[in-house]
Amino acid sequence: MPTISTLSKIEGTRAQGANIHFSGSTSSEREAVVQQVQKDTGAILVPPYDHPDIMLGQGTLALEFEDQVAELADAKSASHEHLHLQTNGNANGDRKSKGKLDAVLTPCGGGGMLSGTAIALHGTGTRVFGAEPSFQGADDARRGVAAGQRVTSVKTLTIADGLRTPLGEHTWRVISNPEFVQGLYAVTEENIKDAMKLVLERMKLVVEPSAVVGLAAVLYNEELRGRVQREAGVEGWDVGVVFSGGNTTVEAVAKLFAVREEEGERAGGVVGRGGERVAENVAG
Amino acid sequence: MPTISTLSKIEGTRAQGANIHFSGSTSSEREAVVQQVQKDTGAILVPPYDHPDIMLGQGTLALEFEDQVAELADAKSASHEHLHLQTNGNANGDRKSKGKLDAVLTPCGGGGMLSGTAIALHGTGTRVFGAEPSFQGADDARRGVAAGQRVTSVKTLTIADGLRTPLGEHTWRVISNPEFVQGLYAVTEENIKDAMKLVLERMKLVVEPSAVVGLAAVLYNEELRGRVQREAGVEGWDVGVVFSGGNTTVEAVAKLFAVREEEGERAGGVVGRGGERVAENVAG
Repeated sequence: MPTISTLSKIEGTRAQGANIHFSGSTSSEREAVVQQVQKDTGAILVPPYDHPDIMLGQGTLALEFEDQVAELADAKSASHEHLHLQTNGNANGDRKSKGKLDAVLTPCGGGGMLSGTAIALHGTGTRVFGAEPSFQGADDARRGVAAGQRVTSVKTLTIADGLRTPLGEHTWRVISNPEFVQGLYAVTEENIKDAMKLVLERMKLVVEPSAVVGLAAVLYNEELRGRVQREAGVEGWDVGVVFSGGNTTVEAVAKLFAVREEEGERAGGVVGRGGERVAENVAG
Repeated sequence: MPTISTLSKIEGTRAQGANIHFSGSTSSEREAVVQQVQKDTGAILVPPYDHPDIMLGQGTLALEFEDQVAELADAKSASHEHLHLQTNGNANGDRKSKGKLDAVLTPCGGGGMLSGTAIALHGTGTRVFGAEPSFQGADDARRGVAAGQRVTSVKTLTIADGLRTPLGEHTWRVISNPEFVQGLYAVTEENIKDAMKLVLERMKLVVEPSAVVGLAAVLYNEELRGRVQREAGVEGWDVGVVFSGGNTTVEAVAKLFAVREEEGERAGGVVGRGGERVAENVAG
């Protein structure tokens, strides 16, 4: 694991009984450590994303997603029928209920989950998009596809720390094929924090920054929003957004959102004990 | 609402279309504002906890809890049977699965939820306990029952801000009756933070401090833990713990856990950008 991994991820992995080897944070540094461990111990490498089996395995999430959407549509049409009987159709259920999604967005780092999802949904009529952070060039997939050539090295400290890796050879082959992935959209660090705040406070789900890049793209990426407008008008799309994962700590959340807190205080918002604590910290 | 309510609670209430009147944070200050609003507008008071209808309504959570536990026990016994066939009984399913809980714990502020739960579970064999913060005397129910007299005024700034109110007359009558509530347990602010950290990081659920006092009692209250040991030995109890609610913000989480972060940094743990940010804040 990279030494800069969040402590909860390291501890969580250890709690499963793992013997962890640490490395630097770039893919070349990581690969060097892997090769050394393989040399020392004869271990077999299970790659994190750049292998057909891994891609297909991660893609099974799309099959579960399809099942969930079909179930939801069944429940909705049953409840619509019920409401229709009760209110003579004047109910909030008049929108089409197709039982399938117009689009699915997944986060894209190494690309295993995105390419697997694209393979699983190929030919279903459900569009597949990838979402990436833009900070310090972390949107390597988007840039690579635009340029027609894979970006092989990325060094970024985006808060979406699960998405700091570039695409691999196998994942690139799927993701750069517009038959499989119909678009890649990048979001800012601020977009990610806004989406994360929304998910924590309204959905009551603890997610890490990497988890919410898809939601951030849906909410804030004007290119994607313009595309939906052009292709579907006011009807819009039913979009499935994959959240992955939840490796974060309350301390990491505190670091991410402490600046806002100070801004809130400066702006004369609800004042807490933050200001005093900063002073204590400096004095201490 | 008290002016010191968390911003997310205020905004969430407004988002439902409410016209909010603010008051001080003690119950007498709140009641004075209520009386004024009633006088000005002819409004009818729906009390937050101290009314038989409210208590019974909140107590329906216990009925849902019973249903969920029965379902879980069915699923467990089905899967136990399945495992038994596959592994010849050498599976992690050998414990009794009674389909009902030995005890339920709820948070206790005004006591509506606790008294309603106690009424709903009366005569079922499931014990009912209340959990309270101890900070600045917030454990008024526990102290009142011990002294045989209701504590009618509490002024505490416990982080469990939903539990700052004392018991009402109706809720006192139920909660002080050992036929209904078999014990009250208090937890420290540190206990609450530890339990909250666990729920956020491991259950991935966003909860406010008030939500986790029951879990904190189960994990850290030696009196309760000793009681389970005495009454059930190594077998233990199946305990149901009510989490209520999730009105918090990322900024509030940041305030709660920023001190730990600084401690972590001073102790030479994983170092983030917190230190730099503090410096920027002071400079700016």
